[in-house]
Amino acid sequence: MTYFLGIDLGGTNIKTGVIDDTGKVIRKHSQPTEAKYGADRVLKNMVDAANTVVSAAEMSLKDITYIGIGSPGPVDAENGIVISSPNLSGWSNYPMRNLIAQALGRPTVLANDANAAAFGEYWVGVGASPDIQNLIMITLGTGVGSGIVLNGQIVQGTCGYAAEIGHMIVQPDGRECGCGQRGCLETYSSASRTAVRACELLAKGKPSSLQEIYKSDPQQVTAKVIFDAAANGDELATDVIDQTAYYLALACINLTRILDPQMFVFAGGMALAGDALISRINSHFEAQNWHAAPNGVTLNIAKLGNDAGLIGAAAIAWDANRND
Amino acid sequence: MTYFLGIDLGGTNIKTGVIDDTGKVIRKHSQPTEAKYGADRVLKNMVDAANTVVSAAEMSLKDITYIGIGSPGPVDAENGIVISSPNLSGWSNYPMRNLIAQALGRPTVLANDANAAAFGEYWVGVGASPDIQNLIMITLGTGVGSGIVLNGQIVQGTCGYAAEIGHMIVQPDGRECGCGQRGCLETYSSASRTAVRACELLAKGKPSSLQEIYKSDPQQVTAKVIFDAAANGDELATDVIDQTAYYLALACINLTRILDPQMFVFAGGMALAGDALISRINSHFEAQNWHAAPNGVTLNIAKLGNDAGLIGAAAIAWDANRND
Repeated sequence: MTYFLGIDLGGTNIKTGVIDDTGKVIRKHSQPTEAKYGADRVLKNMVDAANTVVSAAEMSLKDITYIGIGSPGPVDAENGIVISSPNLSGWSNYPMRNLIAQALGRPTVLANDANAAAFGEYWVGVGASPDIQNLIMITLGTGVGSGIVLNGQIVQGTCGYAAEIGHMIVQPDGRECGCGQRGCLETYSSASRTAVRACELLAKGKPSSLQEIYKSDPQQVTAKVIFDAAANGDELATDVIDQTAYYLALACINLTRILDPQMFVFAGGMALAGDALISRINSHFEAQNWHAAPNGVTLNIAKLGNDAGLIGAAAIAWDANRND
Repeated sequence: MTYFLGIDLGGTNIKTGVIDDTGKVIRKHSQPTEAKYGADRVLKNMVDAANTVVSAAEMSLKDITYIGIGSPGPVDAENGIVISSPNLSGWSNYPMRNLIAQALGRPTVLANDANAAAFGEYWVGVGASPDIQNLIMITLGTGVGSGIVLNGQIVQGTCGYAAEIGHMIVQPDGRECGCGQRGCLETYSSASRTAVRACELLAKGKPSSLQEIYKSDPQQVTAKVIFDAAANGDELATDVIDQTAYYLALACINLTRILDPQMFVFAGGMALAGDALISRINSHFEAQNWHAAPNGVTLNIAKLGNDAGLIGAAAIAWDANRND
């Protein structure tokens, strides 16, 4: 059996895991990132977290074939450099791969965390079939993250900025986005923006079963609460979710025209809604999609859940090892 | 010197060329496709056209290292099969690559013609620099065609349907498209649809220097005529071209978010407008594009002109040869 060490670097926590070559998590560990103390402290914490989980698995580092790191923000995967990181301020062209490889003495590979998560679903998740080589993952959380796997490889882009699907413009001159564009997918279809759109309607006094919750605490009007209300027939909630799904469907159609993938994989908190979300996206997808030529692309919910980041980091280690 | 034979299969004409490994066209030839007589006749004509151009170059087939074919419609490049073809009716899963290879006795490779043309620009056109590995070509003619080169390889997609950029939805619930979708890029920004939008305004009696031409023969209101009028300050023509450019800019922004390419390459009849087109697309691109992170992508006019199809076919032959 071959073992990989996955390091999922988040703004709040560093998660590490020892994962075998079937994607099974043998042991995992989490500790604070302490990003505010700077890059060197974060690096030290990553090394500690790696050593901790390897010991907990009753192994030593020489039992680890390859280490994979998933890092937020754009990375230069080829050279193992974190270009910048939205949640780790002040990081700029940080040679993380080589520093970790030196500190832990094992070959190491680095990828953007959303790309790694997509690659995890390709490796041992919903795309874990030799037939599936082209997959697009869309993560619906505070923003809309994504990763693209084409021909069994992560699409990195020229500067590490590929797969920013949340910032496709789906509505010309639409809602303002923090990125400086208007009408980005993220401004309609992220979990948080779905909640924001509901609150806008509730603020106008539109009738809804959500009015009571909204009036006591608008923060409680989350995507989950909206999906629950829609399941109980609430019209406002249904309309809000319908718009979320409509723009996701448009994005999927455009991605299908551009890349002709085999599957879309939805992840993140809002994907827990499962069929209630997928069926609505699918219905808009079918209604808006061309009839020029069907390609049989399917919409799916991700399989790896909370361990997606860890398994994704191990997945790029598995890939680097097979290509070595 | 290594020589390639390019075969550019069109609905009307078959173009063949002997091309050297610098992309120089040594000799070329064109003859009617005669598509109405069926696939076997077209195949015979392709073989004749190949033999004719090789003889004209004072060569024999054994001087040809590799043959490349660019074919309209989706192809299964890996297996050398024309899946279907819009302009060659009745073609379905036609094993063109092997039939040509057998008839001419040389190794042969097949690609979609728009993909091949993009690969030609990558090989010896505007992208002919070792630094350029990620390029997207957009051809503005009757429709909007395109080809995508990522990491120096054509993006084919699962079923040969990748790079249908003309059918990205850029305007939700927008203009009807022949493909069954609404708001496709093609319905705003192809050369013909640019002319159609001008004619719609002219039909409403809007003041314009184009009214006289329109009234005598609407067919004369071509993209070229509209660009000429805009150059002379015509307001209606300027507005029409501005919308063409606006949606092209949105498409380029979305493609940049998804694939992070190094350059866009515009080709086709309307690209002859050159800077008058590019500068307008660029201005909308800059205005609408995010400021989150510049990737330095550039907008360019294609270099290979009328020989793009031929050189593209030779380009995939060059690529197949280097990978053999």
